[in-house]
Amino acid sequence: KQDQYPSRIYSEPMHIKRQDPIIYSNYRQKAPLEEALLDQYEKKGFLFLDDIFSDEEVINMQKHMQYLRDDGEIKQREESVTESSSGDIRSVFDVHKLDAFIQGVAEDPRLVRIAEYLLGDAVYLHQTRLNYKPGFRGKEFYWHSDFETWHVEDGMPRMRALSMSITLTPNDYHNGPLLLIPGSHLTYISCVGETPENNYLSSLKTQEVGVPDDASLQSLIEKNGIEAAVGQPGRIILFDCNVLHGSNGNITSSPRSNLFFVYNALSNRVDLPFGNTTPRPEYIAARKSIKALKKSD
Amino acid sequence: KQDQYPSRIYSEPMHIKRQDPIIYSNYRQKAPLEEALLDQYEKKGFLFLDDIFSDEEVINMQKHMQYLRDDGEIKQREESVTESSSGDIRSVFDVHKLDAFIQGVAEDPRLVRIAEYLLGDAVYLHQTRLNYKPGFRGKEFYWHSDFETWHVEDGMPRMRALSMSITLTPNDYHNGPLLLIPGSHLTYISCVGETPENNYLSSLKTQEVGVPDDASLQSLIEKNGIEAAVGQPGRIILFDCNVLHGSNGNITSSPRSNLFFVYNALSNRVDLPFGNTTPRPEYIAARKSIKALKKSD
Repeated sequence: KQDQYPSRIYSEPMHIKRQDPIIYSNYRQKAPLEEALLDQYEKKGFLFLDDIFSDEEVINMQKHMQYLRDDGEIKQREESVTESSSGDIRSVFDVHKLDAFIQGVAEDPRLVRIAEYLLGDAVYLHQTRLNYKPGFRGKEFYWHSDFETWHVEDGMPRMRALSMSITLTPNDYHNGPLLLIPGSHLTYISCVGETPENNYLSSLKTQEVGVPDDASLQSLIEKNGIEAAVGQPGRIILFDCNVLHGSNGNITSSPRSNLFFVYNALSNRVDLPFGNTTPRPEYIAARKSIKALKKSD
Repeated sequence: KQDQYPSRIYSEPMHIKRQDPIIYSNYRQKAPLEEALLDQYEKKGFLFLDDIFSDEEVINMQKHMQYLRDDGEIKQREESVTESSSGDIRSVFDVHKLDAFIQGVAEDPRLVRIAEYLLGDAVYLHQTRLNYKPGFRGKEFYWHSDFETWHVEDGMPRMRALSMSITLTPNDYHNGPLLLIPGSHLTYISCVGETPENNYLSSLKTQEVGVPDDASLQSLIEKNGIEAAVGQPGRIILFDCNVLHGSNGNITSSPRSNLFFVYNALSNRVDLPFGNTTPRPEYIAARKSIKALKKSD
């Protein structure tokens, strides 16, 4: 099948201009976000929403995060990814299926409406997870475009998906906040290196293929800089599927955690992986259980 | 022999109140630093000096850093420590003996005068090095007190030494700046864990013994916070030998490098290691070649 965004097949990195819209809806009058925010999203590829959730809602999310972390049974599940060194929980996938309250947050009409608007379509949850970066020995996440992996390893056809990360702890400059490269969503970096079979078993701990080369990163960072998503719990970090992002490790005593929901346009549902690998498990990339979220309007 | 600061011998961490002055000179009228800086040093255990070096001096230091990094012969020397994963240079020890210009900086009367004042004695160089944290894959340095290691592994008797780190690159919040815990110099944390023989061969890459326990760090950070030494090249970060410090990794494209000089009071010269281990090599801790720096006044 034709591949607009080939990656992991050439011996040299390539830059491919983004061939998809960033905001798919054309009307702006009844948009669920202010004009300035929409402009920022087009330009940078991400935005921060600080006023969506009440304090009580944030406290409830934090409680449910704690339930999930303390649940010994959850830690044993294949949906749970642990730190290579310590065995502590790093991510729990499919978290909306494990916790009805979190499912309610992921399907909250305030979030769904924004996703529908930006993607110009009904949306479904491609992936959900709880991320937990412990204090003292939290490891880094290297720079990557989520879309690159979703395209190559999951078969997501086009750039018509977005992520919402809801921060559940304070994020400051020292505890490994999410770092984003503004404007990086406009270029697709075709990465070098073949995908090993069952790559996800190690890549969710330390990503080694599907990461951009140093020279591409250098030029993008020199041109656009780096922005850190520092802020208080309850903030939504909303970012396009192709924005390059990552985070440094965390030696401070403050852990960092967030809920992470990926909304994909229903028309952009995954097909066979473009990298011709075995599809990743359902809990990492919805394939069989695709269901449009309730229309918000 | 009697040990005021035992460490690595108990099964539980212990907190020992500092038993030594912070500033050893009593006169303040002719001090080489302003009163406010001296007060800050006593309280926090560190200070930043931005006005010592001219732009030209900083450029020369950067050039010499580059010479040393590019020198294939230097990389092969035992004084050079490389990153575990990449093999890139992480530190070059005894850098004042490898480069006469850098020796001149370490012996610069402006620096020596400050060290002599704070330590109330003639001073000598206990250790010098060039530190280089590459971009993209720079690894963290975990929290530690330099004095704990110098005491246990080198035999430095008392807290009467200080370090000057001269930054040679911009340090911002993202590229793994030095993080310090203000006020941590007032408490000696007796660490848990025995010292393996030839510990320095691995500890200079990843320190695993002589690091404070999580609970001690947590309480110190909750009480005092963390301060990041962000700033422009040419700044001197001056810190007491017992201040807890460390740094996160660095996934940005900006490397971070500095010159690092340790001044010790001549009366505080090292004896046999308090941990009863074999003394570390001369290039890590001066033992035979101790020579007071020229009196600056």
